[in-house]
Amino acid sequence: MTATFAELWAEIAPIGRDDKGGYLRYALSEPELILRDWFRNQAARRDMPVTEDGNGNLFAWWGRPWAEGTVLTGSHFDSVPHGGGFDGPLGIVSAFLAIDVMRDRGLRPGRPIAVAAFVEEEGGRFGVPCLGSRLLTGVIDPDRAAALRDAGGVSFADALGGRPAGALPVLHRVSAVVELHIEQGKALCDRDAPVGVASAIWPHGRWRMDFAGDGDHAGTTRMADRHDPMLTFAYTVLAANKEARLAGAHATVARVAVEPNATNAIPSLVRGWLDARAADVPTLDALVETIVKRAVERAGKDGTRLDVEPESVSPEVTFDASLAARLAGLLGGAPILATGAGHDAGVLSAYVPTAMLFVRNPSGVSHSPAEHAPEADCVAGVEALAKVLGELTS
Amino acid sequence: MTATFAELWAEIAPIGRDDKGGYLRYALSEPELILRDWFRNQAARRDMPVTEDGNGNLFAWWGRPWAEGTVLTGSHFDSVPHGGGFDGPLGIVSAFLAIDVMRDRGLRPGRPIAVAAFVEEEGGRFGVPCLGSRLLTGVIDPDRAAALRDAGGVSFADALGGRPAGALPVLHRVSAVVELHIEQGKALCDRDAPVGVASAIWPHGRWRMDFAGDGDHAGTTRMADRHDPMLTFAYTVLAANKEARLAGAHATVARVAVEPNATNAIPSLVRGWLDARAADVPTLDALVETIVKRAVERAGKDGTRLDVEPESVSPEVTFDASLAARLAGLLGGAPILATGAGHDAGVLSAYVPTAMLFVRNPSGVSHSPAEHAPEADCVAGVEALAKVLGELTS
Repeated sequence: MTATFAELWAEIAPIGRDDKGGYLRYALSEPELILRDWFRNQAARRDMPVTEDGNGNLFAWWGRPWAEGTVLTGSHFDSVPHGGGFDGPLGIVSAFLAIDVMRDRGLRPGRPIAVAAFVEEEGGRFGVPCLGSRLLTGVIDPDRAAALRDAGGVSFADALGGRPAGALPVLHRVSAVVELHIEQGKALCDRDAPVGVASAIWPHGRWRMDFAGDGDHAGTTRMADRHDPMLTFAYTVLAANKEARLAGAHATVARVAVEPNATNAIPSLVRGWLDARAADVPTLDALVETIVKRAVERAGKDGTRLDVEPESVSPEVTFDASLAARLAGLLGGAPILATGAGHDAGVLSAYVPTAMLFVRNPSGVSHSPAEHAPEADCVAGVEALAKVLGELTS
Repeated sequence: MTATFAELWAEIAPIGRDDKGGYLRYALSEPELILRDWFRNQAARRDMPVTEDGNGNLFAWWGRPWAEGTVLTGSHFDSVPHGGGFDGPLGIVSAFLAIDVMRDRGLRPGRPIAVAAFVEEEGGRFGVPCLGSRLLTGVIDPDRAAALRDAGGVSFADALGGRPAGALPVLHRVSAVVELHIEQGKALCDRDAPVGVASAIWPHGRWRMDFAGDGDHAGTTRMADRHDPMLTFAYTVLAANKEARLAGAHATVARVAVEPNATNAIPSLVRGWLDARAADVPTLDALVETIVKRAVERAGKDGTRLDVEPESVSPEVTFDASLAARLAGLLGGAPILATGAGHDAGVLSAYVPTAMLFVRNPSGVSHSPAEHAPEADCVAGVEALAKVLGELTS
C-alpha cells in the first residue's frame, strides 16, 4: 500500500503556508523543522534509516549508508520568503515516491540510494545559498558558516545546535547525484514535454552593495546640500537592468535594507543586493564590473560612498554531459536544458557525476505563490526519477 | 537649589541611546515610557500636578489645569529611529528649566503654565506625525488613530491602553502655545544668533506609493518577461529628486518595504513613502502631481501598477505674525525664520496663537546622531523661553 503523489503532497501543503498561498519555510525555522520531522516519518514508514552529516543535511537510506557507489537524490525544504511550495520539496517527495515505485516493481538496487534534504538551499535565512551542500563538499569554511546570522541575529551555529561539521569524508563513495526540481521557466512547455534533463547552470552570484551617505532631516535639508544614498541606489537599480539587457544576461536588485528607514529622515545607508547571472563567466564578470563602475560614478555625483562585497559567486556548472545524454535517452528523448537558477546539484557536480531532472511548470514562474506543476507532470517526474535511479543503481 | 541644563540633560541622555549615539525612542515604547516617568518625576520635584488628556499627551501644571488663559509649552520625547536626542526632548527639558528660572526670580505668573509632552510627534511608530496634537485638536478621528498599527502589528489603541479620547474640550481656554525646538538647518549659524523665532512651516506631507508587479525567480526570468516594480520605484526616486530641484522644493524617498525582499526573487511589491515639502500649497500640489504622473508613465513601460495614498498632508502653517514679532523684540531682535519641518506647534497654530523658538544647531543636521546644540545655546534657549513665558503670563 503505497501513497499517491496527491496524498503525499497534501500532507506537506499546509506547512508554513501564508494566507496568499506562498510559503515561509526558512531553514531550521519551525515550519522547516516540521518538514524535517515529516521526512523522518516518511523514512520510517519505508524502513529507511536516517543519518545526519552534522551540517544540517538529512539522508534517508535504502541500502547501507555511504557504501561504495551510493546514489544521492532529494532536494531541499526551505523556501524563499513567501515563495512557491514546489521549489525544493518536489524533489524530496518525488524521491520517496520513486523508491515506492521501484519497490512495487520488485527492484533490488545494486547500490545504496539516499534521499537527501539539504539545508538552507535558498540562502533565505543566512544569506548563503546552497549552504548545506557547500558545507558537505567543503567549499565553505565551517567557521564562516557557523558565524552567518539571520535577520534576527541568530547564528547558523545556534540554529543548528553547534558548529557545522564541514566536508563529508565519505563523499567520494557517491557514484552519482540526481536532483529532481520544478522547472523555473517555460522551456518544457515550449517543447511540450513533462520532464527534461539539465545541461548547465549559468554562472551567478550575489553582491552586497552598501551605499552610504549622510543622514539628515528630509524636511529641512536643502536638495543641494544632500548626500542621499537612495539616489545612488535607485540609479544603480536602473543601470543594472539596462546593462543586463545589453549583455543578454540577468541582473536583479530585489532585496533592500535602509537605515534608519524613516519617512522624514534622509538615509545614512541603503544596502541593496545585486543578483547577476549570465551564460558564461566573462559575460558575468564584465556585467558586474560595468554596473559597479556606473554606480561608483553616480556616487561621486551624489557625494555618497559605495562598498561592494561578493556574498556568493558560483562559476558556470556544466553537468556531466554523457550522464545527461544517457538519462535523456532513457526517458525517451527528454529535452536537455540550461537554467539560470542555482541548485545543490550544481555545487555537488564539481565532485560527483551529477544530473538534474526538471518537471514542467506552465506558469513559468518560481519564487512566487504562482509557481505550479500539474499533478500529472509531477507523477511523470516520479516515474522518470524511478527509471533513472533504477538505471544508476543497477 | 535648581538643576542646571547639563545636569538635567545628562539624566535623559542614556535613555534609548543606540551604540552609535542615535536614539530609538518610539512613542509608547519602553524608552519613551521611561522618559514619561522621568517627566512625572520632574513635575513632582517642582510640585507640578500632571494631567493626561486620554490621547497619550501629558501636561505638568504650574497653576490650575486648563484655567482660562493657560499658556502651553513643551514638545515631544519620541525620536525617528536612530535619530538625534535634541529633536523634541530639548523643548521639554527647557520648559522645566524655564520654570525654575522664573521661580528663582520670584515671578508669579498670572496665568497657568503647562509643560506638555506630546505623543508620537515623528510618526515613527504609527505612521502619522503629530498624532497627539492632531488628536487633541480633533483634526484626526480617534477611531482612525486607534486603528493605526506599528510595524509589529500593535495598534495605537493597544499601545495607549484604550481608544484615544479625541478633541480636548478645554483647548479654547489656552491663550498661547510656545514650543522650543532645536533648529533643523543652519540659518541661526549664518545669522550668528543662538535663538530664533519661527515665522511659518512649509506645507508638507507623506504619500505611500505601492508599486506592484509580478513576483518571479531572479535567475530564470528573462529580462523582457519581467514586471519588476523595483524599476518603477527606482525611476520614481530619481524623478522625485529632479522635480523637487526644479520646483525649488524638497522631495525625499527614505523609507522602503519590499515583498518578499529576497535576493533571488523579483519583488511582487515595492512600497515607498514620498516626503514632499514646498514653500506654498500650489507648488507642493504641482510637485506631487508631476512625480506621480512620471511614476505612472514609467509603470506603464514596466508593466507594473502604482497606487498612491496620502498618509498625512499638512497645509502651510503661518505662525501668529504679531506674536512672532513681539517675541523677537522681547529677545533683543532674534531672527525670524521659516522651516520645512512639521511640529505639534504647527497643528496647534490653527486653533491657538502659537509661536516657536529655535535653538542654534551648528551641524545643521537633524534626524541623525549628528544633530547637536551646544550647551551654551541650550542655556540661552532656556533663558529665552523663561522670558517669553513670563511675558505671556504676566
